[in-house]
Amino acid sequence: MQSILSCADKDLIESLNRLFDFLRIPSISADPNHNQDCQKAAKWLQNYLQDMDFKVQICETKGHPIVLANAPQVKGALHILFYGHYDVQPVDPLELWQIPPFEPCIRNDFAGNKVIHGRGSSDDKGQILTFLEACLAIYKQNKQLPLNITVILEGEEENGGEHLPAFLARQKDQLHPDIAFICDTDMAMPDVPAITAMVRGLVGEEVKIYAANRDLHSGLYGNAAQNPIQILSEIIAALRDEVGRVTIPKFYDGVPEINQSIRQQWQKIGKTDQALLDPIGLYCPAGEVGFNAIEQTWCRPSCEINGIMGGYEGPNFKTIIPAHASAKISFRLVGQQDPFQIRENFRIFVRSRIPKDCKVEFVSYGASRASMISLEGKNLRKISKALEEEWNHKTVVIGSGGSIPVVSDLQREFGIESFLIGFANVDDCIHSPNEKYNLRSFHKGIRSWIRILYALRS
Amino acid sequence: MQSILSCADKDLIESLNRLFDFLRIPSISADPNHNQDCQKAAKWLQNYLQDMDFKVQICETKGHPIVLANAPQVKGALHILFYGHYDVQPVDPLELWQIPPFEPCIRNDFAGNKVIHGRGSSDDKGQILTFLEACLAIYKQNKQLPLNITVILEGEEENGGEHLPAFLARQKDQLHPDIAFICDTDMAMPDVPAITAMVRGLVGEEVKIYAANRDLHSGLYGNAAQNPIQILSEIIAALRDEVGRVTIPKFYDGVPEINQSIRQQWQKIGKTDQALLDPIGLYCPAGEVGFNAIEQTWCRPSCEINGIMGGYEGPNFKTIIPAHASAKISFRLVGQQDPFQIRENFRIFVRSRIPKDCKVEFVSYGASRASMISLEGKNLRKISKALEEEWNHKTVVIGSGGSIPVVSDLQREFGIESFLIGFANVDDCIHSPNEKYNLRSFHKGIRSWIRILYALRS
Repeated sequence: MQSILSCADKDLIESLNRLFDFLRIPSISADPNHNQDCQKAAKWLQNYLQDMDFKVQICETKGHPIVLANAPQVKGALHILFYGHYDVQPVDPLELWQIPPFEPCIRNDFAGNKVIHGRGSSDDKGQILTFLEACLAIYKQNKQLPLNITVILEGEEENGGEHLPAFLARQKDQLHPDIAFICDTDMAMPDVPAITAMVRGLVGEEVKIYAANRDLHSGLYGNAAQNPIQILSEIIAALRDEVGRVTIPKFYDGVPEINQSIRQQWQKIGKTDQALLDPIGLYCPAGEVGFNAIEQTWCRPSCEINGIMGGYEGPNFKTIIPAHASAKISFRLVGQQDPFQIRENFRIFVRSRIPKDCKVEFVSYGASRASMISLEGKNLRKISKALEEEWNHKTVVIGSGGSIPVVSDLQREFGIESFLIGFANVDDCIHSPNEKYNLRSFHKGIRSWIRILYALRS
Repeated sequence: MQSILSCADKDLIESLNRLFDFLRIPSISADPNHNQDCQKAAKWLQNYLQDMDFKVQICETKGHPIVLANAPQVKGALHILFYGHYDVQPVDPLELWQIPPFEPCIRNDFAGNKVIHGRGSSDDKGQILTFLEACLAIYKQNKQLPLNITVILEGEEENGGEHLPAFLARQKDQLHPDIAFICDTDMAMPDVPAITAMVRGLVGEEVKIYAANRDLHSGLYGNAAQNPIQILSEIIAALRDEVGRVTIPKFYDGVPEINQSIRQQWQKIGKTDQALLDPIGLYCPAGEVGFNAIEQTWCRPSCEINGIMGGYEGPNFKTIIPAHASAKISFRLVGQQDPFQIRENFRIFVRSRIPKDCKVEFVSYGASRASMISLEGKNLRKISKALEEEWNHKTVVIGSGGSIPVVSDLQREFGIESFLIGFANVDDCIHSPNEKYNLRSFHKGIRSWIRILYALRS
C-alpha cells in the first residue's frame, strides 16, 4: 500500500489536470441550457473509467444520464457501491465570482494554503475524483482493484434527483453491494476526519399565488385589491412562531431527542455557534430557541425560504400591485419525519390562508427522508482507523444539515448503509460564488481512499 | 366655438397621427437605457408647440428635461397653467402585450368601440394631446388662443418626479397663473365627466436586508443562519393588523372622516365594490374592514408592496439562504398625513425588527402630501357646465387613489388650485400591459377642452 500512496503523491499534478478537465464542463443540471454539458460530463466519466478497465454504461433517463460502472470482479471480496454526482449548482450571481466558475485554477488563500477554485470543485466533482483517483493509483500499480467496486454517478443531484430512485430500483436484481460510500460531505474540522452518520431529508415546494388578472396601479387599487406579495409574506411569517418553531400542524412528529453523548462529542471538537456563524459574518443563531447552531443544523428540522419574487424589482420604482408572486420553500427533515405528510400539511396550511378570490399553485421539488447509520460494526471501525492513520487525528462521527436522498434510496433498494466520507471544509462556498476545494483535501482525500480500500480488503 | 369644434372633428385623423408619433417614442423614465428617448419626447413636444407659436424652453435637470411653453399673451384674460408628463411606465412583462407597447394602433375592443393601443396612450400622452390638440384647433382657426396659457410637461412623473418641485420654485417669480389644469385622471364612469377633487399623496421606499456575507447552502445553515427573506416577510406581514389597518405608529394622524354627502354621491353613480373589482377578476375587497372598495382607494391611506426579490427564482430549485432580500413598498396618503413623518416612522418600525447581526438599507422614492380642492367657486361651476354640454351628463366630483404630487407643488409655489380633468377609463390598463385609451375619450376630450377654454374666457 505504501508504494501506491507514493504513486498517488507522484501523480498529483496529473490527477489535478484530470480534475480541471472535469471542472471545465459546466454541467448545471437545473438549467436546460446546459443539458448538453451534462451529457458531456457523463461521457467524460465514461472514458475516464474505461481507461482503468471498468465496464461502463451511460444510462439515459428522462432527465440527465446516470453513469453506471463496474470494475472487474474480485472473488470473495467486499462489494462497494460508490455514489457521486457530476452535476453542479447554478452560478448566479455571476458578478460575485472572483474567477470565472468554469475556468478552474489553483491559488493561495489568505492563509497561504493552496486551494482549487471552480464550481463543482468541492460539490461534488473534486470529491468524486478523490475516490476515482485512488482507484486509478491502485490500478496503475496492480492492474486490479482489491475489492468489488460499482460506481454510480448521477447528473440530477442538484435538481431534485428525480430519476435516480427508479434507476436504483431497476438495478436491484443485478447489483448486490455490501456497503455504500458517498463522498459529498465535510470533515469535522480542518484536518479532523469525519464519518457523517446523520443526514437530513428534504421537501422542496414552490408556491405561486395569483390575485388580479393583471398588474394593477397601486394608487387606483391600493387597499382594495388583494396583493399577492402581502399574502405570501403573511404565509411565510406564519410558518415560524415566536420561538422559531415551525407551525405547520404535526411538523415535529417523528423528530427524535438529541443523544446526549453525541452532543458532548460535538462540544469537544469545538462546534460552537461562533464556529458555524463567524465565517459567514453572523453571530446571533436564528431558528429554534433551546438548541445551539450545530444542533439546529444537524439534528433539528428546518424551514427555509430559498427564493421569492413578485412585482417590480428593476431600477427605480414602479407603483404596481402585481398579479402574482411566488416563493421557493424547503424543509429539512430529521428522524422519522414523513416528507409526504409534511408536504400535504404544508399545502393545507397555505391553502387555508389564501383569500377566496385568489388562487394558489404548488410545484413539488423532491421529497426524501432523513437517515442515520448504526454506530456499531466492524466496517465503521476499520474505516475510522484508516482515516485516522492518514490524518493523525481521531475520526469523529458527525451529522449533516444537507440532504443526500440517495442514502435512503440505497437503504431501501439494497438494504445497505451508506458511509458518508468527505474531505470538504465548511468554508468551501458550495452552492455560492467562489466555490473552492483545498488542495490538501484533494491530495489526502485520494490517500484516504487508498487506505480505506486496503483496510476493507481483509 | 362651433366652427372650432367642427374643425377638431374634421382634423381627427391628423390629431391621431400626431399622437401616434408621440406614442412611438419609448420615453420610459425609470430605465436609464431610455434616457435618450426622454430627450426625444421633449424635443418632439418643443417642435409641436412651436408650430402654434408657443415660446418653448427645454429646461434640463439632473434627470429628464422639463418642457416649459408660453402662448402669446392675451391681455386681461385668465392665466392657465397646464401640466402633463411625457414619460411612461416600464413595459415588463413584455410577453403579456398583445401589441408591441411602442407600436400604437387603433382596434375595436370586444364591445366594438375603437380604442388606441400603446404604452402612454392613456397615461399620459393621449391625455396631454387632448388639451394641446384643442389649443391647435383654436390656433388654426383664430391664430391666437382665448386665454393666457403656460404648458409644463415633465419627464419624471413615473419615476418619483424628483426635479419638478425645484423647477416650479424657480418659476415662482416669472409665472403668475390663476388656475392649473392637469389631464391625468379618469372619468367618473364611461361617458360621465368628472373633476377629481381629492388626490392621495405618496411615500415610496425600498428596503434592502443583508444577512450572511454570501449565499448559503440551506441544508448546512438552515435554521441557524438568519434568512433575509424570512425577516422581510415578517416585517411585511406586521405592516397590517387583522382588520387591515396599517400598524406603523401614528400612521393615521391627519386622516379625515369621510364626508357623508360625497359618500352618497358615489353610491348614486354606482361606485360599488363590484364595479371596481370585477374588471380585475377579484371580488373580496382587501384592506381595511369598515370601508368599501372605492372609499378605501379614494379616502383612506394604504400600504402596498410593489415588488419583492431575494434568493433563487430561476427554473427548478436552488437550496440556498440568500445573502440579501429587498422589497419596494409605497404608502398612499390622504388628508393631512405627513409624508416625511411616515417615512421616518416606517424606518423605525423596520429597524426595530432587524436582528442584531443583520443590516438594513433604505432608498427613498418620492414623498408628497395628499391634496383636495374647494368645492365652491365660479371656475369649478363653469368647467362643470362645459363638460356637461359635451358629454350630456352632469359632472361628478370624485377622488383618485393615485398620487399627483404636482398638485401640492402648484398649491405651494403659486397658491393655485389644480383642476384634474381627464377622460381615461378604469379599464385603460395604465401601468399594466396592453394600455389603451378610448378613441371617444381622445376625440371628445379635445372637444371638452375647447369648450372649457371658451367657458373661462368670460
